[in-house]
Amino acid sequence: LGRKILDSIAMDPPFSLGIIGGGQLGKMMTVEAKKIGLHVSVLDPTPECPAGQVADVQYLADFHDENAIRELVMNVGVTTYEFEHIDSLALIRLADEGRLIFPAPRVLQVIQNKYAQKTTLLAAGIPVPEFRLVSTTDDIARAGKDFGFPLLLKSCTGGYDGKGNYLLTGENEIDQALAALRCTQLIAEAYVPFLAEISVIVARGRDGQIKSYPLSENIHQDNILRTTIVPARVSGKAAAKAQLIAEKVADIFEGIGVFCVEMFVAGNDEVLVNEVAPRPHNSGHYTIEACVTSQFAQHIRAISGLPLGDTRLLSPAVMVNLLGSEGSCGPAVLVGLERALALPGVQVHFYGKKTTAPKRKMGHLTVLAPGLDQALEIAAEAASFLKVVSVPEGGNSS
Amino acid sequence: LGRKILDSIAMDPPFSLGIIGGGQLGKMMTVEAKKIGLHVSVLDPTPECPAGQVADVQYLADFHDENAIRELVMNVGVTTYEFEHIDSLALIRLADEGRLIFPAPRVLQVIQNKYAQKTTLLAAGIPVPEFRLVSTTDDIARAGKDFGFPLLLKSCTGGYDGKGNYLLTGENEIDQALAALRCTQLIAEAYVPFLAEISVIVARGRDGQIKSYPLSENIHQDNILRTTIVPARVSGKAAAKAQLIAEKVADIFEGIGVFCVEMFVAGNDEVLVNEVAPRPHNSGHYTIEACVTSQFAQHIRAISGLPLGDTRLLSPAVMVNLLGSEGSCGPAVLVGLERALALPGVQVHFYGKKTTAPKRKMGHLTVLAPGLDQALEIAAEAASFLKVVSVPEGGNSS
Repeated sequence: LGRKILDSIAMDPPFSLGIIGGGQLGKMMTVEAKKIGLHVSVLDPTPECPAGQVADVQYLADFHDENAIRELVMNVGVTTYEFEHIDSLALIRLADEGRLIFPAPRVLQVIQNKYAQKTTLLAAGIPVPEFRLVSTTDDIARAGKDFGFPLLLKSCTGGYDGKGNYLLTGENEIDQALAALRCTQLIAEAYVPFLAEISVIVARGRDGQIKSYPLSENIHQDNILRTTIVPARVSGKAAAKAQLIAEKVADIFEGIGVFCVEMFVAGNDEVLVNEVAPRPHNSGHYTIEACVTSQFAQHIRAISGLPLGDTRLLSPAVMVNLLGSEGSCGPAVLVGLERALALPGVQVHFYGKKTTAPKRKMGHLTVLAPGLDQALEIAAEAASFLKVVSVPEGGNSS
Repeated sequence: LGRKILDSIAMDPPFSLGIIGGGQLGKMMTVEAKKIGLHVSVLDPTPECPAGQVADVQYLADFHDENAIRELVMNVGVTTYEFEHIDSLALIRLADEGRLIFPAPRVLQVIQNKYAQKTTLLAAGIPVPEFRLVSTTDDIARAGKDFGFPLLLKSCTGGYDGKGNYLLTGENEIDQALAALRCTQLIAEAYVPFLAEISVIVARGRDGQIKSYPLSENIHQDNILRTTIVPARVSGKAAAKAQLIAEKVADIFEGIGVFCVEMFVAGNDEVLVNEVAPRPHNSGHYTIEACVTSQFAQHIRAISGLPLGDTRLLSPAVMVNLLGSEGSCGPAVLVGLERALALPGVQVHFYGKKTTAPKRKMGHLTVLAPGLDQALEIAAEAASFLKVVSVPEGGNSS
């Protein structure tokens, strides 16, 4: 198998890609893989999941079903995954048998544990907020004294979109937080009074080549990403620092594929790494329309052993997530499409999830405009029109 | 059904799109439809055809199978097609029953007959090369005297990629041409000594809104498109004329969807329409990477009754077709991918056709670069590396 794994594409038998997880990230990876004619198999427990709708094959199986994962991995040329909360030990066993799985399961194992991730970053000289492992009320109270309040408590594993996080405003909330997190391994982390939250999508190829995308500025609400703004409105000095940090992070983990390095920009152009995701990321969706190579195409290149693509930004861009509306649960309907698409430079992605729920990520919109202010205005207007709601059964608008 | 047919997208039951023809155009349409979560059914006789690989459903049926076409059309919200050589009468019957088929079958009927198409254009004041209907050797000899040699002979129906065309260099070739074309309805057309071949992709919405893309400059070889260059290297005056002509053509046919208007630029900035295609076109593939809205996304918008998208060019672009190599017939393999993708700004599309044949359209590459000269150089180099060949059974490179 060697260094190169995809120097040519044969259609019969086809070069086959496996993806664990068939949500929106798996779907957008699949679309890019199909562009170059790869055969794509997706593993996901939901019938007709977003990626399953565009893939060649869907394995209908739970993410904890080690036999199904083994079957997928053994049947494809290279395997990747769209989220980090999978059994890294099962993947390590398969990688040790010589199967190609990227990013490497041993990298996944470090990144999926927040304590291991931050320790690795710290040891390599990457600036991160102060943190320590805690488990008891006393530990946490001591961390509060040392780091100050507000204090962040995070489950070491399994958290996403704010789940598994708790922001303590004072010592009196510790028991409440422990009850909410119901977790044995926790880290306490100093809260960073940031000026901006940013991220950099960075890719590392099988030959160690690294390419990073322009900075994204990210606006979160209730711990969920709402808006990404590119170029980020931060100082040139902070931007340069962030870009360097992101590329160094990709090097530290020696990961193969696309990674997202989420960072805080604080006063005096200080840049601190918040979290690393071993996969394409919501804050990189803008690259589909705004960059020469999308983050998904880049991921496919990297894990296939192909040279990395051009990350040049072609236009200022704003991405807004379309979340399921509050109070709506059930068959999903996207409304307001006509008014949104009447605005210049608006592209809408609707993932194809059958059911909506409050704050569920159902789609996103991207706006390209010659100027960033214009893109921001159009994005706000388009987002105000678009709603994902549910309809009673039998009702539909087509 | 009224004016709006897709003001909202319901996932259950899903809004469904039908596409007759599952080749590369159908595939790229499908990918865009899936981006906004539509359910896509494709009709094509080839199992696992390019579009079938990404669509939800493939009807395995011949394009002449009126029952299968009826079944598809009756089961989807709106139907379109990827090529013009289908039975327009069958589609007219379905449209008369109230089914939504775009571009309208009556428009297709006119466009698919070259004589009807050119007569319509001429009557509306669009400049076209001199032409007339011919059938006998005498007719053709007379046309040769009136229009001069070389003289083009074209079958009125069914031609594509030069098939159905014959360039007569003198009267002595008439019998040979008639034998080669084996066709009852022919037009003779004056040969235009063009400076450039260009095309404009133009979209017309259900409300009559028209948007056109920047001019493509097209290089053909053996009557097959090889290279598209954007922006076209023609005078500003010719470009402005061509843009106006293309928009007027869309208006004349009152077509709904994306059209391609192929034109000649001759001396003195003269612009003449060569041919109109009622669908996204090979010369518009560059729009996927280089424009805010791709021609395929635009087609989906137009036929779904949605507002048309922004056609702004984000970067100079060069597209080169990847044709099956001479002497290669059988299971398709794309070679040279690694070297091609190592060049900056190169994107490769490989359609997923199982078998290759000489000059078969197997894929294309698009290069974006800050300058057109640079894009042209990179495209030539990338194209020199990429070859689509066949392998003996059992051999493969994955």
